[in-house]
Amino acid sequence: MSEVPLTPEFALIRRHFTRPASKALLGVGDDCALSRTDQALAITTDMLVSGTHFLPDTDPRALGHKALAVNLSDLAAMGAEPLWFTLALALPAVDDAWLSAFAEGMYALADQHGIELIGGDTTRGPLTISITAAGTVDPAHALRRDGAQPGDDIWLSGATGDAALGLAHLEQRVQLEAESAAYCLERLHRPQPRVALGLALRGIATSAADVSDGLLADLGHIAGRSGVQADVRFDRLPRSAALRACTDQSIAAACLTGGGDDYELVFTAPPARRDAVEAAGAAAGVSVTRIGRIVRGTPRVRLLNAEGAAMPIERHGFDHFAS
Amino acid sequence: MSEVPLTPEFALIRRHFTRPASKALLGVGDDCALSRTDQALAITTDMLVSGTHFLPDTDPRALGHKALAVNLSDLAAMGAEPLWFTLALALPAVDDAWLSAFAEGMYALADQHGIELIGGDTTRGPLTISITAAGTVDPAHALRRDGAQPGDDIWLSGATGDAALGLAHLEQRVQLEAESAAYCLERLHRPQPRVALGLALRGIATSAADVSDGLLADLGHIAGRSGVQADVRFDRLPRSAALRACTDQSIAAACLTGGGDDYELVFTAPPARRDAVEAAGAAAGVSVTRIGRIVRGTPRVRLLNAEGAAMPIERHGFDHFAS
Repeated sequence: MSEVPLTPEFALIRRHFTRPASKALLGVGDDCALSRTDQALAITTDMLVSGTHFLPDTDPRALGHKALAVNLSDLAAMGAEPLWFTLALALPAVDDAWLSAFAEGMYALADQHGIELIGGDTTRGPLTISITAAGTVDPAHALRRDGAQPGDDIWLSGATGDAALGLAHLEQRVQLEAESAAYCLERLHRPQPRVALGLALRGIATSAADVSDGLLADLGHIAGRSGVQADVRFDRLPRSAALRACTDQSIAAACLTGGGDDYELVFTAPPARRDAVEAAGAAAGVSVTRIGRIVRGTPRVRLLNAEGAAMPIERHGFDHFAS
Repeated sequence: MSEVPLTPEFALIRRHFTRPASKALLGVGDDCALSRTDQALAITTDMLVSGTHFLPDTDPRALGHKALAVNLSDLAAMGAEPLWFTLALALPAVDDAWLSAFAEGMYALADQHGIELIGGDTTRGPLTISITAAGTVDPAHALRRDGAQPGDDIWLSGATGDAALGLAHLEQRVQLEAESAAYCLERLHRPQPRVALGLALRGIATSAADVSDGLLADLGHIAGRSGVQADVRFDRLPRSAALRACTDQSIAAACLTGGGDDYELVFTAPPARRDAVEAAGAAAGVSVTRIGRIVRGTPRVRLLNAEGAAMPIERHGFDHFAS
C-alpha cells in the first residue's frame, strides 16, 4: 500500500498560513483562490529582500507587519478598502519559530485592516517576501497620481524622516538618545499604513501617493503624472521631536526630504477643501500639514526656503540600485 | 532650480515593463492598478528563485516565459480565463540586455493568452521572480480540487516526466540523444500552460490540479481535498518518445510520477463524460489520457501495476525544502 504524505513544505504552509476564508469564496489550498466583488479593484505588489530592504536579523514579527504594511500603504494612497492579499515567501530554511512570529505580525495587521490572506507560495531561497494586495475602490474617486491641479495645496500626513533616521542610527551614522531611537526604530519596523486617511480623502484629494522612496521623489511621481510643478516649503515640513533633536543637520534634512520608508501620504487638494482635509485627518486620527503648492510649470519638484528661493536637493529618493 | 529626475530604478521599470493598459482601468505607474470585472476572480501566486527553480545561467527569454507560464497553469487548473498579472522582480544588478530578453519572453506568452501586466516592483537582490495572476471564472464551474467523486475517471493532459528528464540531462544524471534532449529542455524551459483545456473542461471535470510538484503529489492534493482515494495505473501513464528512449528505467519512472515542472492538468470526470473530455482535448489541441480511477477509501494516491497490485512510490513530488 503506497501513500503520498504531505511534504514538509506543504505541512509548513498549512500550519502557518491557512485560515478559513471569510470574505473570499475559496481561500488557501487550491490552485487558485476565488474572490468576487461588484466594485473595481486597486491592486499593488511589493517585494522586500533581506539585505536590501531590511537587515537579516530583523525581528520576524516586525517583518511580517512591515511586508503587509507597505502594500496596505499603496492601497491607502489609492483610497481603496483592503480586501485580500497573497504572500510569496522564499526562506533559506524551515524555521518554525521564525515562521510563527512572522505570521503573527502579519495576521495582527491584517486583522486590524480587515484584509484576508487568500493564497501563497513558500519556497527555499534567500529571504524574500513578496505580497500582492487588492482593495475595492470606486474608480471615479480613486486617489490617482495624475489629478493634481495648479493652485492645489500639497499636504502631508504625519511626518517624514523618522524611519530613515532610525536606520542611520542602526548603521551608526548618527547617535540618537534612547527615547528618540526607540521612536525612530518603531517607525522603521512597524509603519502604520494610512488606510483610514486614504478612505476619508476620497472625493476631497485630487491626487495622492504614499511616501516609500522619499517625500520629494514620491511627490515627483505626482508632478510627473499630473504634468505640474510642485513647490514644497522646507520650513513647513513637519518634524518629529526625534528629528528636531538630531544634531547632524545634514542627515536630518536628507532623511526628511528623501529618506523614504515613511509610509505617509502626500496628496493634493484645492484650497477650498482645506476644512474637509483637516476633518479627514481628524477622523482618521492622523495629523495633516500643508507643505506647499502645485503651480503651472515643468513637471518637477522644487524645494523652497522661507523666502521662496529654491534650495538644492541633495538626495532625491531611495534607489535600490544606487551604488 | 532643483529638479527630481527619474532614478535608474524607475527608468528601468518604465523602459521594459510599461505598456498602455488595454483591459485595466489603470495600468503600471500609480500606487495601484485599477481593474474591474463583473465575474469572480481566480487568483494565484508563484515565486521562482535562482538556484532553487532554475539554473542561474538560464536564458532570460525562457525565464520570462516560464515565470508567467507557471501562473497561467494555475489559472488553467481552475478553468479561469486570464485577465491580469503583477510582477515583482529582484535583480543582482541592472542589465539591460537581460531585462529586454526577459520582458520579450514574458510578453510573448502574455499576448498569446490575452493577459495584461498591470503592476510591479523591481528591486536589488538575488534573482527572484514573483508573479501574481488573476483570471475570471464562474465559481459554479471553477475546477476546484475538492470535487472528485468515487467512480470518476482520472485524466492527464499531455505527458509528464519530460521537464524533469531535461533537468536530469542538464545535471548529467542521464545522457539523452540530441533530439530527446532538445525536446525535454524545451519542455523544461518553455512549458505551455493548458489554458484552453482548462476552459474547455468547465462543466465537465469534477476536479483538477496542475502538475507542478509531480503527478502523484498533485493528484494527492485532489485526493486529500476531495476525501477520496486515487488509483493510478502505472502502465497507462502516457510517455513521450524521449522518456521511452531513456535507458535508466528508475530515473524515467521517477520523472514520470514525481518529477514535477510538467504544467499538465490532472483532473477527474464521470465515465459518462468520456466523450466530452475527449472533445475538450481535441478542441484545445492537447491529448488527454485516462490514467486511473477515483474510489472510496482513505484520502491517498495508490500506484497500481497492470495486474492491479500496489507499487512502491519512491519519490512523491518535488519538495524545495528537501535536503
